[in-house]
Amino acid sequence: MSAFDAAEVLARCNVLATHTASNDGIERSYLTPEHARTNWTVGEWMADAGLEAWQDAAGNQRGTLAGPTADAPVLLLGSHLDTVPGAGRYDGILGTLMAIAVAGRLRERGVSLPFGLEVIGFADEEGTRFGRTLLGSCAVAGTWQDSWWTLRDAHGVTLRDAYRAFGLDPDAVGEASLVGQPIIGYLEAHIEQGPLLQDAGKPLGVVEGIMGARRFEFEMVGEAGHAGGMPYGRRRDALLGASEVVSAVETLARDAGAIGTVGRLRAFPGAMNVIPGRVEFSLDLRAETDALRDDVWREIEEAGLKAAAARNLAFEVSELHAARATHVAPSLASAVEAGIRSTGDSEPMRLLSKAGHDAMAIADLCDYAMLFIRCKDGISHHRDEDVRADDVEVALNAFEASVLELAARYS
Amino acid sequence: MSAFDAAEVLARCNVLATHTASNDGIERSYLTPEHARTNWTVGEWMADAGLEAWQDAAGNQRGTLAGPTADAPVLLLGSHLDTVPGAGRYDGILGTLMAIAVAGRLRERGVSLPFGLEVIGFADEEGTRFGRTLLGSCAVAGTWQDSWWTLRDAHGVTLRDAYRAFGLDPDAVGEASLVGQPIIGYLEAHIEQGPLLQDAGKPLGVVEGIMGARRFEFEMVGEAGHAGGMPYGRRRDALLGASEVVSAVETLARDAGAIGTVGRLRAFPGAMNVIPGRVEFSLDLRAETDALRDDVWREIEEAGLKAAAARNLAFEVSELHAARATHVAPSLASAVEAGIRSTGDSEPMRLLSKAGHDAMAIADLCDYAMLFIRCKDGISHHRDEDVRADDVEVALNAFEASVLELAARYS
Repeated sequence: MSAFDAAEVLARCNVLATHTASNDGIERSYLTPEHARTNWTVGEWMADAGLEAWQDAAGNQRGTLAGPTADAPVLLLGSHLDTVPGAGRYDGILGTLMAIAVAGRLRERGVSLPFGLEVIGFADEEGTRFGRTLLGSCAVAGTWQDSWWTLRDAHGVTLRDAYRAFGLDPDAVGEASLVGQPIIGYLEAHIEQGPLLQDAGKPLGVVEGIMGARRFEFEMVGEAGHAGGMPYGRRRDALLGASEVVSAVETLARDAGAIGTVGRLRAFPGAMNVIPGRVEFSLDLRAETDALRDDVWREIEEAGLKAAAARNLAFEVSELHAARATHVAPSLASAVEAGIRSTGDSEPMRLLSKAGHDAMAIADLCDYAMLFIRCKDGISHHRDEDVRADDVEVALNAFEASVLELAARYS
Repeated sequence: MSAFDAAEVLARCNVLATHTASNDGIERSYLTPEHARTNWTVGEWMADAGLEAWQDAAGNQRGTLAGPTADAPVLLLGSHLDTVPGAGRYDGILGTLMAIAVAGRLRERGVSLPFGLEVIGFADEEGTRFGRTLLGSCAVAGTWQDSWWTLRDAHGVTLRDAYRAFGLDPDAVGEASLVGQPIIGYLEAHIEQGPLLQDAGKPLGVVEGIMGARRFEFEMVGEAGHAGGMPYGRRRDALLGASEVVSAVETLARDAGAIGTVGRLRAFPGAMNVIPGRVEFSLDLRAETDALRDDVWREIEEAGLKAAAARNLAFEVSELHAARATHVAPSLASAVEAGIRSTGDSEPMRLLSKAGHDAMAIADLCDYAMLFIRCKDGISHHRDEDVRADDVEVALNAFEASVLELAARYS
């Protein structure tokens, strides 16, 4: 029986759940005290698994195991340690802790890998604080953009100032990059965040690719006014316009077979007796192909402009993020499939990830593959997010076997 | 030329505009540092007009001029000093400062009134901070409810704690009440907050009554989930349900000839990639009669329940406030009409107030009447709220003449 079993991994998920800014679900965003405490805790666990633990120049928590030679290539394993507000315990966290546990198991068995190993707990995948996802993995992939330094959080703090407050040097962010290093690939384990494995009665699946996503911030601008005194004919109620866009997003995306979600919406000035003069809201749009996604976006934008024009409002759009659809590397995916097969599932289920993952950003650095783990009722980004301990045990076996499959190929 | 002319009153409106918690329009809510500074400034002006200035046990700023005898009745004049967020300079403020100016004019002329005079700058009419309007005037009218002490502001501070932090004793709030005192009535001057006087080309109007209003807080509750992973068929998106209610409020209220406004709306947890599991929003509903208002409310509630049921959401309603429609006292209104006539308008326009006023709460204490002043394009509860200086001068003359008309009747 390994010390790095499902019970231990799940116990560690519970420990990290205490590093939260809120008691209403977990909230742990980039460059916060919770982030620092999490890195410290995870660093201890990395050391315990035989990894050299360190925090990189972007705040990612990394654990390195040297390869047999100085120029040996490296296999990357990992996921993210940050959460959305009101989060559960497993999204990102489980994959990171599974990667550490696999390193610990290999050490317990005395396995010598033909390559170096690096486990990465990415510091910002969700983009909750600065509105830009995948900051941690972009730093590692060498695709950090200087324009991000002026992004601001809800309190007006810039990303640059948040770096300094966290004890990081913005000018050193390039040191987090692995560009130019010999890399075998990146493997990520993650809960499915959807119900398809549960529906199929399977604990594990292999990912075929990740949907392309675009994210927008909208502003609907009208004019505030007194809720009693201003007659309907003269109102420029920004919330009525925004509500029509919310409904249109569902209709247009659903009809086209895409997925559109308005996750943020807030009316300003926000008093009961004042007509909303301005509404800020967001759109997260995903589809199996970039072309479909972009077609749906054009329809949504048209609907927004039409709703605004009908009410003498202005509909303002800014795009925060666009990620193209990515595909896994067949050779790496076959190692993951071999890992799943080794657990007794002779026909591993293939899934398209509708959620984004650090692997999307790492795809700019190297090949990737992913292992999906069944989660309860597809619930994620919610405190009710749940996994079964026996699924985690099977997943650990499969993930370890995937690494051993790659080791066998490289020997 | 009086020292208490329109130029002085408007200059004072500008001074009070600097007592604000925000630079994006004025924001001055109950029991805040801005409230304290405003009371101090207004108290100086009251003293300057010959009134004995004091802050009452509910934080209202009051100025008293004793009557000819100890048991002489009192005429109340006033309006409110608090604002909504993003407010302009005149809603409430202008009426309070006009009342002080009229007291100053009467003193300049050496007029001895046959009754006492009390000018009140009510501390909370808008209800912005604790979600319950007319707190200041309810204290004066003796209708304060003990249940209000546990109301909380957006930061979780109770009304009781806010009293203490402001230096007020919650147990003494009854001392603000005028119940049992001999009172002639209450006169309030206020900007129209609608476009009807402007449309009619008149600077002033006399109010016939104030629409009944009900205010509700809604919660639409579904389930948060991952914006990518959760298929449409399993979503319980609270924002989609809430958006349908927002649209229904407009349709149902407008068709019935009532006025419904959703002023607040916010989706939670409020991340771009999370399906909203909960939406908090509000309804302000007004109509010419209480019966019409209540009929429309039943339709809106039914629409909310239906929208919720269709999406497997819960629609939760709490009523914050219900004010019945009130009517002015004909004898007091005739004094206001006489005041308007004295300025050369032989046929004063009569208006129904669609906005609530302190007079609604004071109606439980004594008779009331109101003078409306034209404002630009009907804009109110907005930084663009504006009045013309010559309208304010005419309004001061009319308001002073209304008081003199009552004085003549009581002599």
